[in-house]
Amino acid sequence: MTDHPAPADHPIVKSLLRLIRAEAGGAWDGEPDDLLLSPFIVTKQAKRELPLIGDPDPDVLARVEKFYTAIGGEIEHRTGKAITPILNIHHEGWGRIVLITGRLVAVTAHVRELHRFGFQDLGQLIEKAEKLVADGVAAIEKYPDVVDA
Amino acid sequence: MTDHPAPADHPIVKSLLRLIRAEAGGAWDGEPDDLLLSPFIVTKQAKRELPLIGDPDPDVLARVEKFYTAIGGEIEHRTGKAITPILNIHHEGWGRIVLITGRLVAVTAHVRELHRFGFQDLGQLIEKAEKLVADGVAAIEKYPDVVDA
Repeated sequence: MTDHPAPADHPIVKSLLRLIRAEAGGAWDGEPDDLLLSPFIVTKQAKRELPLIGDPDPDVLARVEKFYTAIGGEIEHRTGKAITPILNIHHEGWGRIVLITGRLVAVTAHVRELHRFGFQDLGQLIEKAEKLVADGVAAIEKYPDVVDA
Repeated sequence: MTDHPAPADHPIVKSLLRLIRAEAGGAWDGEPDDLLLSPFIVTKQAKRELPLIGDPDPDVLARVEKFYTAIGGEIEHRTGKAITPILNIHHEGWGRIVLITGRLVAVTAHVRELHRFGFQDLGQLIEKAEKLVADGVAAIEKYPDVVDA
């Protein structure tokens, strides 16, 4: 928000990389960041070629979860409030995601066509994440009594 | 809350019966209420005999969902606010349930050992439901601006 670090140094991207490497239990520690982030990048052309038939791959849903977990982590970092992400995703690839703190829904997102989940590039990933983080932080600052209710 | 109708006439119980019959698509329209409600009643003795090994039956999870959907419906009825139930239940039988309206978490419930989900009797079901409804209504009345945010 305030500064513009290189994409790979952005806290959201670093969070994502931590979550990806944590899941692999050390097996991916030596893999380059670009390679680990590459499944999050899906160009428009690639999206068109992904069929919406059938259920999205479980790996896609794991990426969606990591993206919103990283957003929750960044909101925690900026506000000091504990965030719980709740994903309610239908196996066909649509649903709702909320990030909750106390009695406040800090972030709410409706998602669909998750078969095609991904971003044009790392810049777009950061931009979308920043928007959700800013939204969550603003809500927490606006309703402190609901957060601590 | 204000009056004490017979258990079977309580709005929560009527909601539950509607949800149960709706799911059966007409097949259970002629079945007596008691029979349809009986899976919600699990005595202490019966609970002790239900093993916690393995995943709870999908029917149990469907009952949990109906119970909280009925609670959401009753909160809607009393407040005029649309409620979205979000169930985030691990297949092993524990998790979190929230009822959301606008940016407010009207009701939050942590659940566990859902293998043994059920109530001593209809009176206890109503009592627990009323407590959650009252909690949700009170939160909505306390934070109207969060609900409409």
